[in-house]
Amino acid sequence: MSIPISRHMADMNPSLIREIFKAAQKEGMISFTAGSPSAEEFPAAELAELAGDVFARQAVLALSYGVTEGYEPLRRWVIDDLTREGIAGSGDDTIVISGGQQALDFTAKCLIDEGDAVIVEAPTFLNALNTFRTYGARLVGVPMDGSGMDMDALEQALRTEARVKFIYTIPNFQNPMGVTLSAERRRRLYELAEQYDVMILEDDPYGKLRYSGQSVPAVKTLDNSRRVIYTSSFSKIIAPGIRVAYLCAPKELVSKMVVAKQCVDVHTNMICQVLVYEYLTHYDLEEHIRLCCAHYRVKRDAMLDAAGRYFPKGVEVTRPEGGLFLWATLPEGYSGRALHERTVAAGVAAVPGAPFFADNCPNDRGFRMNFSVPSAAQIEEGMKRMGACLREFIDA
Amino acid sequence: MSIPISRHMADMNPSLIREIFKAAQKEGMISFTAGSPSAEEFPAAELAELAGDVFARQAVLALSYGVTEGYEPLRRWVIDDLTREGIAGSGDDTIVISGGQQALDFTAKCLIDEGDAVIVEAPTFLNALNTFRTYGARLVGVPMDGSGMDMDALEQALRTEARVKFIYTIPNFQNPMGVTLSAERRRRLYELAEQYDVMILEDDPYGKLRYSGQSVPAVKTLDNSRRVIYTSSFSKIIAPGIRVAYLCAPKELVSKMVVAKQCVDVHTNMICQVLVYEYLTHYDLEEHIRLCCAHYRVKRDAMLDAAGRYFPKGVEVTRPEGGLFLWATLPEGYSGRALHERTVAAGVAAVPGAPFFADNCPNDRGFRMNFSVPSAAQIEEGMKRMGACLREFIDA
Repeated sequence: MSIPISRHMADMNPSLIREIFKAAQKEGMISFTAGSPSAEEFPAAELAELAGDVFARQAVLALSYGVTEGYEPLRRWVIDDLTREGIAGSGDDTIVISGGQQALDFTAKCLIDEGDAVIVEAPTFLNALNTFRTYGARLVGVPMDGSGMDMDALEQALRTEARVKFIYTIPNFQNPMGVTLSAERRRRLYELAEQYDVMILEDDPYGKLRYSGQSVPAVKTLDNSRRVIYTSSFSKIIAPGIRVAYLCAPKELVSKMVVAKQCVDVHTNMICQVLVYEYLTHYDLEEHIRLCCAHYRVKRDAMLDAAGRYFPKGVEVTRPEGGLFLWATLPEGYSGRALHERTVAAGVAAVPGAPFFADNCPNDRGFRMNFSVPSAAQIEEGMKRMGACLREFIDA
Repeated sequence: MSIPISRHMADMNPSLIREIFKAAQKEGMISFTAGSPSAEEFPAAELAELAGDVFARQAVLALSYGVTEGYEPLRRWVIDDLTREGIAGSGDDTIVISGGQQALDFTAKCLIDEGDAVIVEAPTFLNALNTFRTYGARLVGVPMDGSGMDMDALEQALRTEARVKFIYTIPNFQNPMGVTLSAERRRRLYELAEQYDVMILEDDPYGKLRYSGQSVPAVKTLDNSRRVIYTSSFSKIIAPGIRVAYLCAPKELVSKMVVAKQCVDVHTNMICQVLVYEYLTHYDLEEHIRLCCAHYRVKRDAMLDAAGRYFPKGVEVTRPEGGLFLWATLPEGYSGRALHERTVAAGVAAVPGAPFFADNCPNDRGFRMNFSVPSAAQIEEGMKRMGACLREFIDA
């Protein structure tokens, strides 16, 4: 039969990014396409030791159905951590989820009616755009600069767009740009959300990976009128394959999200929840993060330094204080997609940035470069190749 | 602020079943409320042994991001298994998912437009009803008897209901009734689906847990016109806490489901996928299932035998050939909910069946009893208490 695909899914197609990732796996290719931490930083030995113990002492717990809100000791750990950062409230506002992506899905599911608008950073995380699209949201992009979302453009969007449900922001070391929303703009963002009575989805997977500069309090710390959904994850600081993350939001919204989660995956897998909890209680996460940051800092500096040496004038590069990415912008009139074809032929791949932009603000001049996964030697050689391509591309 | 909950989620509330499960945890209570396999059957020692090895030899694989379609060796194992049962087709029609619930969510997400109808068995799995509701589906219940869904009533529903998108069936040892859809009815079901050009969602988590009688080929084996979504799970035959299941569907639908999964949870957690695969290749799943079946058969027989001895005439009980549940029906005019209050006071809990019925066919006369989790002694004592309550309740 001809499959009657639902209206919201009919236009959704496999991401172009998948093709780019495939190209990046060719032999001899130096890839700056990753969106993950380095496998070298995974606490594999520690988890191996704990896994045997979990199955020996807590097999029934780790293998049985769990509660939808999350494994209670892990949930309590998260609440304590969020409380230290001024984020968590009463405790019944926090749940464990199956990866940070689920916070985006639940927020969309519980807030969006068809035709509602969501304001997003331009550019932003591609999978967020797609998730909001599957619920029939209109996406309104607001331009970014080196300090995050442009607040005047945000106000303009809030004033002119009908039915805005929430503003989606990645405030720390944003994906894909690597920039951080300044403290001043966070306050302005929150005031604007209050003024226009919209919610804020604050997606913070990278916040603990800071290599320089001062940390900025989460937007959620300002949340007196209870309009912020805050989410973070263990994916970037422990490992992404475990799919364990968490969110903190106004409790009446969280109770709807719990119902949504029952209908979506019942609960987050117990083995990984128990393993993560055991890791958190037996090892020093802060020390582990310090080590990760030390290694990533070196790689970030190497990539920035190489950009300075190899990239032609006219190609702008962000200077992230943390996270996994930096972002390069070509001069007016040049296409990141066209550049990508050339760099791949020259043996280096980044992610062309056009898919990261909402439809109202198309932009093909940027590309994303990951520095957490490649080695220092790969960064040096890859940036050299990239620089040669750029010079040839721009001078041509 | 007042949280602007989306229309589809506004009426969704935490399941009543949660209260029932809470009541069932009181000290001294004998609980027949479970929906899970017995923890005694979990292959915990085997998984413990494998877990150490997985982290020692395959840590990077188990901790990294995986592909959305599932860990390829596990996906291949599933395809081979489904092929042996006459279910799988080309291979690109099968993906690994994060528990069977996700098949229901993805089917609804990819097929349902607001106001579409879904035909469901009455009674059926409560979480399925709720999942379909979150996409704005109208639910049309079709009565069940000892051989599954009533096919004349199904035809009537297909003839009279507008915009039916799919029929949802649990053909083997159905939740909550324990009954199996006969081979003849499976053929009729498929013919009716063809005649009215609707799809079928075949949910088969219990199929491998057969204790007596002959197995019946899946509806999916009849799927010449490519309209069946088949899903099964490792939850009931290995362990539910791992959240690893799979589905097989027409490939253009599967490709939409992959996009949906990218937006929902990116991929199923890798540790459990690798662990399950290692278990499947290092141990004999068939032998493990034979042992589970031997144990559950004894418990099923004990519960049926006790029902014969303790339950008053007029209370009908199904005789499941497998699975986890049997279903009891009170005489006309009696309420399962009212009975539940009495049995809980008497120290035994089952699940009152009213929430398992779609709104168009309310029915409060049934209750579900699980026999896989309680011990033989608990079954005997619990059924004795239940029988005493029933006699008092019905004679009163």
